[in-house]
Amino acid sequence: MRFFNKQAIDSLDLKDIQKAVAHAYSLVLDNAFHMPDRMHVPHKENTLLLMPCFSNDHFATKLVSVFPGAAASGLPVVNGILVLADNHTGAPLAIMDGAALTAQRTGAVGGLAVACLAPKTVHTAGIIGAGVQGISQAQFLLFNRKITTLWVADLHETAARAMIETLKKSHPNVNFQVAKTARQLVDACQVVICATTSTQPVFEADPEDVKGKTFISIGSFTPEMKELPDAVIAAADAVYVDTPFAAKESGDICIPLKNRVISKDKIQPFAPVTRQPVATGHDKTWFFKSVGMALFDLTVASAVYRLGKEKNLGQVLQI
Amino acid sequence: MRFFNKQAIDSLDLKDIQKAVAHAYSLVLDNAFHMPDRMHVPHKENTLLLMPCFSNDHFATKLVSVFPGAAASGLPVVNGILVLADNHTGAPLAIMDGAALTAQRTGAVGGLAVACLAPKTVHTAGIIGAGVQGISQAQFLLFNRKITTLWVADLHETAARAMIETLKKSHPNVNFQVAKTARQLVDACQVVICATTSTQPVFEADPEDVKGKTFISIGSFTPEMKELPDAVIAAADAVYVDTPFAAKESGDICIPLKNRVISKDKIQPFAPVTRQPVATGHDKTWFFKSVGMALFDLTVASAVYRLGKEKNLGQVLQI
Repeated sequence: MRFFNKQAIDSLDLKDIQKAVAHAYSLVLDNAFHMPDRMHVPHKENTLLLMPCFSNDHFATKLVSVFPGAAASGLPVVNGILVLADNHTGAPLAIMDGAALTAQRTGAVGGLAVACLAPKTVHTAGIIGAGVQGISQAQFLLFNRKITTLWVADLHETAARAMIETLKKSHPNVNFQVAKTARQLVDACQVVICATTSTQPVFEADPEDVKGKTFISIGSFTPEMKELPDAVIAAADAVYVDTPFAAKESGDICIPLKNRVISKDKIQPFAPVTRQPVATGHDKTWFFKSVGMALFDLTVASAVYRLGKEKNLGQVLQI
Repeated sequence: MRFFNKQAIDSLDLKDIQKAVAHAYSLVLDNAFHMPDRMHVPHKENTLLLMPCFSNDHFATKLVSVFPGAAASGLPVVNGILVLADNHTGAPLAIMDGAALTAQRTGAVGGLAVACLAPKTVHTAGIIGAGVQGISQAQFLLFNRKITTLWVADLHETAARAMIETLKKSHPNVNFQVAKTARQLVDACQVVICATTSTQPVFEADPEDVKGKTFISIGSFTPEMKELPDAVIAAADAVYVDTPFAAKESGDICIPLKNRVISKDKIQPFAPVTRQPVATGHDKTWFFKSVGMALFDLTVASAVYRLGKEKNLGQVLQI
C-alpha cells in the first residue's frame, strides 16, 4: 500500500492525468462503472461527503470534508482523503491526498474540454477566479493550446498577481495580464474558464458579445451558484455537461432552464465528444459545464497508483 | 498525519482500548455523538460499507469491504481502512488498518461486558469460534478475569488448536482445553463467548442447563444469523445490547422476539451498566449481544491516535 501526497500527485505528467479523465468518459460510454449517489453527512455547520465509485479493476472512495469555519483560522476549508482498492480482492492499494487529486482531475476535466472544443489556433485565453482551481485550469489550458496571452481576473487583484507569479515559473514565454474586470477579460479572450464560487454572473453581456468563444465553467456546483450570464448559454451552439447531474446541480444550467432561456434538448453529454470530435471553428460558441463526479477521481487515482508505482513515487506503507 | 498498521494497533495496552470502548458508552449516555446510518454499497457479489461517526473532538469514517470470493484465493474476505480527522478543523489526522482496529475494539466490547457482568470469581470460560475475533475475545477475557481453564470449540479442531497455540504464548499458566462440542464447552464454563458466523444455534440446551452463566454473543450480526439457542435468552435475568439496532439486526435477538420467547422489555441498553454496575453473582444469568457501531471505531481510533503519538507508534506520513 502506498501513500501519495500532493507533491507526488502533482509530479505526474498532465498528459497522463488528462488521459485518465478521458478514460472516465470512455467508461461512461461503455457503461463500465458503478457510481452510487454520494452520501452527504451534515454535522453542525460542516459537511462530510462520501463518494464511492467502482470500475472493473479498482474502486475508490473519496472522503471530502467542508468546514467553512476553518477559513477564519487560515486553514483549508476543504480536506480530502481518497482510498483506492483492488476490485478483484477488496485489498486497499493506496491512500491519496484528496484535495490534490481533486485539483488535478478538475484541471484535466477543463483541459480535455479545451482540447475537444476550442479551435486549435486559439492564442488568447483567460481564467476568472485565481484560486487553487484557477491555477490548475490554467496549467491544463496551457498544456492543450499554444496560448500567447493569458488573462487572469479576480475580485482581489493580489490573488490574480500571485497566480501569475506561480504560472510564470513554468511558462516564462506567455504574456500574462491582469484584467481589471471579468468583462475586459472576456472581450480579450477566445477561451474563457470560470473557476469561482460566485452566486451572481461575474460579467454582463449580450449574446453577440460572446459569439465564437469557448466557455468552461468549473464553479457553480450548486443550484444557487451562477458564474456566467444567460447570454453565454443563449449564444452557445451546444451546451455540454460532464455528467447528467449538472443540469440539476449547477445554477449555470438550471437557472436558464427554469427561465426558459434554453430548452433541455440543447444540453448534451460531453462523453461522446471525447470519442467523436465536433467540428470546431472560430464561428462556434461552446459552453462546457463541469460539476465533477467520483468516476473522475477513480480513474485519475488508478493512474496515480499505476504510474506512481512505476516511478517509485509516494511513500510505501508498512502494512 | 500518521498511518497505524495492525502491529501498531495491536501493540497498545488492552486496558486503553477497553477504556476507549467505555468512553463510547459514556458518549451514548451523554448523547454527545453523531452517528449517521451506515451506507451499504453493493457491487456485484461484494459490499462496501461506509461508517462515519462524529464526537466533539474527532470524526472517523471506516470503509469496510466484504469480498466473499477472496476466500477461494486464500485472501481476507474483509478489508478495512479508517480515516480519523479533527472535528474542529476537518484536517485528517490518521489512517488506520480498519480490520485490526475492528478486531481490537470488538474484543474490548466483549471484554467490557465480561468486566461488568461476570462475577469477579469466575475461573472457567470458553470461546466458541476460533477465528480472528475468537482470539481477540479470549485476550480481553483473560485480561478481565483470572481464568484458570479456558475451553475453545470450533467446527475445525485444528483451528481451535491453532488458537490455543497463539494464546499460550501470552498466557503460559492458563490450562487450555479443546472442547469436542460446543455443549461440552458450555457445561464446563461460567462464561461463554460466541464468535461464529453460524445461522443455527451452535448447541442445544434447556434454560436450566445455562442458568448462572454469562453469555456474550459477538456473531449473529444479521437477522439470519443465530449462535445461541433460545434457552439462553429465556434463562437470562437480563438481555443487554450494545446498540438499540441489535434487536433488529441480530437473529439472536429478533428471532426469539418474533417467536415470543421473550418480550421487548427484557432487552436493555448496556450503556447504563458501564456507569452503574449491576449486582452480579453466580445465581445470575446474563446475555450480552453486540452488533457493534461506528462510535466504537471512533473512540478507539481516537485512543490509538493519541497514545500512538505519545509512544511514537505508526508511520509519519509526509503530507
